[in-house]
Amino acid sequence: MRVALAQINPTVGDIGRNSARILEFVERAKGEGAELVVFPELALIGYPPKDLLLKPQFVEDNLRAVEMIASRVSGIDVVVGYADRNPQPVGRPLHNAVAFLRDGKVIARHFKTLLPTYDVFDETRYFEPGGASADNHLVRVGDVPIGLSVCEDLWNDERMVSRRLYHQNPIADLNRAGARVAVNASASPFVEGKHAFRLKLFAEQVRRFSTPLVYVNQVGGNDELVFDGNSVAFDAAGNVIGQAKDFEEDLLVVDVEEGSKVQGFKSSRVERPSTGIESIYKALVLGLRDYVGKCFFKSVVLGLSGGIDSAVTCALAVAALGKERVVGVSMPSRFSSEHSITDAKTLAANLGIEFHGVPIKAVHDAYEGSLASVFNPSGMGDWALGDDLTEQNIQARVRGGILMAFSNRFNHLLLTTGNKSELAVGYCTLYGDMCGGLAVISDVPKTTIYELAGYINASAGRELIPRNSITKPPSAELRPNQTDQDSLPAYEVLDAILYRYVEEEKGAAEIIGEGFDAATVLRVMKMVDRSEYKRRQAAPGLKVTSRAFGFGRRMPIAQNYQAAASRHGEVGRRGK
Amino acid sequence: MRVALAQINPTVGDIGRNSARILEFVERAKGEGAELVVFPELALIGYPPKDLLLKPQFVEDNLRAVEMIASRVSGIDVVVGYADRNPQPVGRPLHNAVAFLRDGKVIARHFKTLLPTYDVFDETRYFEPGGASADNHLVRVGDVPIGLSVCEDLWNDERMVSRRLYHQNPIADLNRAGARVAVNASASPFVEGKHAFRLKLFAEQVRRFSTPLVYVNQVGGNDELVFDGNSVAFDAAGNVIGQAKDFEEDLLVVDVEEGSKVQGFKSSRVERPSTGIESIYKALVLGLRDYVGKCFFKSVVLGLSGGIDSAVTCALAVAALGKERVVGVSMPSRFSSEHSITDAKTLAANLGIEFHGVPIKAVHDAYEGSLASVFNPSGMGDWALGDDLTEQNIQARVRGGILMAFSNRFNHLLLTTGNKSELAVGYCTLYGDMCGGLAVISDVPKTTIYELAGYINASAGRELIPRNSITKPPSAELRPNQTDQDSLPAYEVLDAILYRYVEEEKGAAEIIGEGFDAATVLRVMKMVDRSEYKRRQAAPGLKVTSRAFGFGRRMPIAQNYQAAASRHGEVGRRGK
Repeated sequence: MRVALAQINPTVGDIGRNSARILEFVERAKGEGAELVVFPELALIGYPPKDLLLKPQFVEDNLRAVEMIASRVSGIDVVVGYADRNPQPVGRPLHNAVAFLRDGKVIARHFKTLLPTYDVFDETRYFEPGGASADNHLVRVGDVPIGLSVCEDLWNDERMVSRRLYHQNPIADLNRAGARVAVNASASPFVEGKHAFRLKLFAEQVRRFSTPLVYVNQVGGNDELVFDGNSVAFDAAGNVIGQAKDFEEDLLVVDVEEGSKVQGFKSSRVERPSTGIESIYKALVLGLRDYVGKCFFKSVVLGLSGGIDSAVTCALAVAALGKERVVGVSMPSRFSSEHSITDAKTLAANLGIEFHGVPIKAVHDAYEGSLASVFNPSGMGDWALGDDLTEQNIQARVRGGILMAFSNRFNHLLLTTGNKSELAVGYCTLYGDMCGGLAVISDVPKTTIYELAGYINASAGRELIPRNSITKPPSAELRPNQTDQDSLPAYEVLDAILYRYVEEEKGAAEIIGEGFDAATVLRVMKMVDRSEYKRRQAAPGLKVTSRAFGFGRRMPIAQNYQAAASRHGEVGRRGK
Repeated sequence: MRVALAQINPTVGDIGRNSARILEFVERAKGEGAELVVFPELALIGYPPKDLLLKPQFVEDNLRAVEMIASRVSGIDVVVGYADRNPQPVGRPLHNAVAFLRDGKVIARHFKTLLPTYDVFDETRYFEPGGASADNHLVRVGDVPIGLSVCEDLWNDERMVSRRLYHQNPIADLNRAGARVAVNASASPFVEGKHAFRLKLFAEQVRRFSTPLVYVNQVGGNDELVFDGNSVAFDAAGNVIGQAKDFEEDLLVVDVEEGSKVQGFKSSRVERPSTGIESIYKALVLGLRDYVGKCFFKSVVLGLSGGIDSAVTCALAVAALGKERVVGVSMPSRFSSEHSITDAKTLAANLGIEFHGVPIKAVHDAYEGSLASVFNPSGMGDWALGDDLTEQNIQARVRGGILMAFSNRFNHLLLTTGNKSELAVGYCTLYGDMCGGLAVISDVPKTTIYELAGYINASAGRELIPRNSITKPPSAELRPNQTDQDSLPAYEVLDAILYRYVEEEKGAAEIIGEGFDAATVLRVMKMVDRSEYKRRQAAPGLKVTSRAFGFGRRMPIAQNYQAAASRHGEVGRRGK
């Protein structure tokens, strides 16, 4: 049976555009002789649609589009994801569904059984699970009974996951019911290393049931999430017989043979999936391009400090959008070193982007002049405003104001350039360097930023990012001779602690037990806990790790859990 | 049976403080002769604990605290909410539980059956539902079998809710099992009008089963949510035999008689629950006080424009914290009218707060000077920076920068003063007037702000909020002679449309069908849809309506659903 894996990049909510794209891929699949074409989970409305699903009119529009697409289908079977109404009077009002289209009609509907409700996923907010009942029957293509499933349905193999969240394994159910080919429509977002796990998990399920699998994943960026595509098909022995491209649309055609023996196939390709830093780079480029495009912006602006974070963000923006659509602004302060300005200029020249220099001294002085009489009437001390932190934040906020003026005046989307390590410990200024519509690298730890810089220069075969931006000690340059390590542990140590605390949810005792300095661990944990209010107002950031700040990490602000103290089983009060 | 309703105000995560508070109320209840004292849902850790629940150490700390509290209990039975581990190897790892404590031990545990996962609730993210099985047995106090339930368990009466989300009615199950008194531990947040509905719903269930009900609700503000308390007890005939205070801690003791006849009771009080604008006022005051206190701030600062929004916010802050802990700053621009400054001054004088005036002209001029050569090299037109929007936003951002400097320098929490109508349509400046740690009135529509102002002045018996701030046409004063109604429909119309679109999720056709002007409806809907990116970075705001922006409304940003166009069934593209 010839199956086309239609790995499309839908826009959330844009039912018209997505429908057109689906019909286009249906025709292409027919042209390639496919009997069946499979689209991703919720392909018609894009994943994740979030609370658009609460609008009855939206659900109605999506249902009409399914009928419209069905009416145009002939000569090929189509599996397409959409949101269906729950026909039962009790339970959540919707199902996460796939429709099976043939000869102008919806001939079957299948409802997702396992509904992820963790990390960035909220599916039980909207959907009632499908049962193993009549809703979830098999569909025959020719003589072959096809078992339909949706994304998470494939992920509850009791031998492969550390804790089974669900009692069912829908793939086992489908096989028991007699499926000879398994089809899975997915919207599985990128996390570094995840595709390698998928390949292992899927092959394991395939071998267990001796049933070929066709897995079709969404591709593209939707807000924080980047979907990597990487659609893949297995024969009944668990061999990969087709692997689509990663991080771009693709139509992959494979010949699937039911049963345990593969009798040969043609037209299939096995692309090499990116791994490691390359996959992170591609995810960020795609996520950035799609966020800008799907928000209808044509260009971006960002501040160039001469440091590595803004340099990497800028290079990513040029890769995503082209140099004509990226504007860099250097905003030196009285504390900026000469090399900051020249490094920023060199970067802009290397990348070939529009570049402006706007010193912040005049505005900074005006703030000081306006506030000093209230804040520091005696005029004593080093700082006009009476303290250092206030002075530092004013400078960062002046820069934010200048960049937002560029954004407003020229309709550029402002990119913010903070990394995950800074955001974790709050080493950033709210309404200052945190200003922006998209936080491109806010889920990339500082140590990985260095890897990215190396990868970018190596791929270009030349020094796009100036060596000096990579080698000099990181500094916010908000006071004389400042470096990040005045306030923070070395980034190798910081990132190692953050990984354990934020991604692994380990407690203080556990982390210290791994050999980290106790005082440093406790200090880092406190910094993380106390910065929650900043992150609540942060721009959406592209997720590349297993736990990103933002939608998938939901912390209270006004709280007083003593994470750092609890290693002693103490339950005391945190001071001011 | 004498039962104490221990309506406490826990701090999220502060297991030590909450445990101490629980033990204190246990002693007080004993002192009043109670046989049983009931605490709210998750009282030990505060509701909602959110992703603190994903920290194994946190769960461990909470379990140890249950044991510690149990060990100190004697001579009274205690029902207290906490998070338990799911003993099964499959399913979500926790239960939303109540422990039944007697004579130094946990003698029973009950797991919540219905897990709300809508609006602001995310319970299936963390919890596995309890079954109607052995986990959920009855507990005898003396001869009386008590049926335990948690919050949502009480809310699925098929005759009272418009759509039943769950298949079970745990209250019916408990009654079938022989409960003679029903106990419900709750954390039910305030929404205007909700307590009246609770009283109806609960009385209905009580009468259905002829079983008295003791309902104990949390009180206090936790981030966006304000819990109103309003704990209440019913006799078996559905009469209210005790009603605790609203918006403050309370210990209410009632004598509950099992069976259908009430034989008389003593010691109980029936407080009058606030309704309407009074309840909104009290919710905002409590939410503000608790957010400030639970974040360990001692004081707040806010900008006073002379308008009604900042005046109402300021009056709320003084009511919550006292006049010594509130600082107002007037920041006139070149477009500010004389009355703006005098109205702000009068307000500050009426309330007796610290007041500063910091004109923004110098900083505004410095921005223009720094940017004009890049933005408007010809110097043509009315605006130094080449356009009006850029100029307006700069002014708003200068004010934000000044207020944040006050916050940094004096450690005041900055309150932001925007209302729900503005936030809905994006009539506000990101990093400008949106700066702040708490958005006090961001869930209060402009028309309700007028009601609040009237209520505040009427309650004070004098003009706290200057009449002029109430009667003058609302204006942002960011350009000459500007008023809000240059850009927006009249607030009565705007709020009516917003209510239907945001709270009721109605589509364009439905709203227009109710008699609103079609062009206005479509314009308002577009403004709402296009402002999502601003709201994503907004400060947490206190929820008082059925649908607040923020945690309970999760919209994608990079999306293109044509809510306004879909009334014609069109599925086209939105332009830039």
